[in-house]
Amino acid sequence: MTEVRGLNVAVLGATGAVGQQMIETLEKRDLPIKKLTLLSSARSAGTRVLFKGEEIEVQEAKPESFEGIDIALFSAGGSVSKEMAPEAVKRGAIVVDNTSAFRMDENVPLVVPEVNEEDLKWHNGIIANPNCSTIQMVVALEPIRQKFGLNKVVVSTYQAVSGAGAAAISELLDQSQAILNNEEATASVLPVKGDKNHYQIAFNVIPQIDKFQDNGFTFEEMKMINETKKIMHMQELPVAATCVRLPVVTGHSESVYIEIDREGVTAAEVKELLKSAPGIVLEDDPDNQVYPMPAAAVGKNDVFVGRIRKDLDEEKGFHLWIVSDNLLKGAAWNSVQIAESLLKLELVTVK
Amino acid sequence: MTEVRGLNVAVLGATGAVGQQMIETLEKRDLPIKKLTLLSSARSAGTRVLFKGEEIEVQEAKPESFEGIDIALFSAGGSVSKEMAPEAVKRGAIVVDNTSAFRMDENVPLVVPEVNEEDLKWHNGIIANPNCSTIQMVVALEPIRQKFGLNKVVVSTYQAVSGAGAAAISELLDQSQAILNNEEATASVLPVKGDKNHYQIAFNVIPQIDKFQDNGFTFEEMKMINETKKIMHMQELPVAATCVRLPVVTGHSESVYIEIDREGVTAAEVKELLKSAPGIVLEDDPDNQVYPMPAAAVGKNDVFVGRIRKDLDEEKGFHLWIVSDNLLKGAAWNSVQIAESLLKLELVTVK
Repeated sequence: MTEVRGLNVAVLGATGAVGQQMIETLEKRDLPIKKLTLLSSARSAGTRVLFKGEEIEVQEAKPESFEGIDIALFSAGGSVSKEMAPEAVKRGAIVVDNTSAFRMDENVPLVVPEVNEEDLKWHNGIIANPNCSTIQMVVALEPIRQKFGLNKVVVSTYQAVSGAGAAAISELLDQSQAILNNEEATASVLPVKGDKNHYQIAFNVIPQIDKFQDNGFTFEEMKMINETKKIMHMQELPVAATCVRLPVVTGHSESVYIEIDREGVTAAEVKELLKSAPGIVLEDDPDNQVYPMPAAAVGKNDVFVGRIRKDLDEEKGFHLWIVSDNLLKGAAWNSVQIAESLLKLELVTVK
Repeated sequence: MTEVRGLNVAVLGATGAVGQQMIETLEKRDLPIKKLTLLSSARSAGTRVLFKGEEIEVQEAKPESFEGIDIALFSAGGSVSKEMAPEAVKRGAIVVDNTSAFRMDENVPLVVPEVNEEDLKWHNGIIANPNCSTIQMVVALEPIRQKFGLNKVVVSTYQAVSGAGAAAISELLDQSQAILNNEEATASVLPVKGDKNHYQIAFNVIPQIDKFQDNGFTFEEMKMINETKKIMHMQELPVAATCVRLPVVTGHSESVYIEIDREGVTAAEVKELLKSAPGIVLEDDPDNQVYPMPAAAVGKNDVFVGRIRKDLDEEKGFHLWIVSDNLLKGAAWNSVQIAESLLKLELVTVK
């Protein structure tokens, strides 16, 4: 017990890459927590985790684990979410789910607080946390949409391996060392654990994240397309994505081309707008080679935006370079931020 | 002397990364060579290079070095080209220049043989070899332009460090080892040797290649924009580029969004077209996770194209993923190919 009055918070998937970041983020922020319950699969149960100077033992997640929980942060895979989220809701918890299980469910709000915090108000127990690559993009696009309108989005991503979990990080590091030793690099995780073929990621680029759909786009690309429309409340917005995995441990980058709805807007105006927009740090000073890079974004909650240029031919066209820590704003921090918004909007009460 | 009848060919910049690939490419191809002259700066002169079983000593490049040369392949930096190309031309050589020195000179053809071989006919002694990232893109776009028209190009690149020379390769490998050892990674080459700041490239992404222009685009991005228009003879074509450096040794990748001029075209038709287009290998089978990757393209002359998709909103929009070995089709092979085209078109004669 860390406070006398506060929320009972649970983290499901507490031993995973995102779960650990959730615990660290809860420790840094000042969400009032009366009790933190850490849950995992039977396999990882028993692990002890330090939280605000106290050791907490990770327990096996069961339906009863959610008795008395106010907010449960889920990050243990889609099938676990599908099974456990209704059990948690039945017991009175609000679930903030970091998997794709409920994102496109029309009864579930899909929320990035800087963009559509108000959608939390119509939740039915479950709130979905969007895909990592979607979150950082909509944080940068929403102020632009509000001020200048938005007619088109074409994004090419540069995604880190930590989005594919701890095994993918090990694979990148092991392969890198093997190649530096002139040894053969073996692959068994990337691009997709459950897919047929695996390819070297060290010193390579793989244009596949998640499995392919019949239309030639990957599920990751379709997540970016569909989730962007849902979060921004623009079903009619043309969005296209090409999602690419790189030999980077943490930090997703995105090259984004947009067309706004107004003529006569300058790059300077877009920079000025984003400079004071919520959740954004503008890093855009070409003369001094200032622009966002993943190595500099690791460990930070912000979305970094730079390289803002007006298209040379299309009057309404602009280019942006968007970088963020995919485990923080892309996952753990956005989930904790949703919990903070629930409290701020009085959708959960401290007892 | 390797053949009794043949061309006198010189390579200037023989000890550099591209120069070495030029020599290897000349060895593999059957351009008839009577004598190969290898030239470099005073510093590298004296190096001995094996060519078709014979040792050739690299000599210091001087104006007189080009006496009797039929074709000179230049890859020793822009300032050397500006000084030496007129000297070589004065002595009767045709210069194929791999630097940016003459590319936008309206008296100099800028040639990718699959696209505009005919432009060789109006050369005035100097022929420019385009920027690496431009070459692989126009090889893929030209058949599309011919059959369906082309109205718009937006490219985001994923470029290897070898494009920045041998020192950049060492920097990537040294930094990678340092990071794997939990040591500090130092940077002194990338993103641009002569620029103010240097950043870590290992396990990172740098959205800067070449220096910045006043318009916020880098010179590399402007090269892609301007060279594409010149090679394809489409000054009016809207082209936009974002050029990005990755921790990859060799092989550039490109995520390209295009709009063609015709409605009703399917992705299957674009694939069918590119399957038989010159210089292209189609690698596009999502069901079997077949798509181009730089690690698989290294050492090959072809341009690999895959992930061809029709845009989900824009009837004339398509997405492509284009990969090629930046030292070969992007530099050495395209230069040697120009030499082969000169012979084929009888613009140079074997004595």
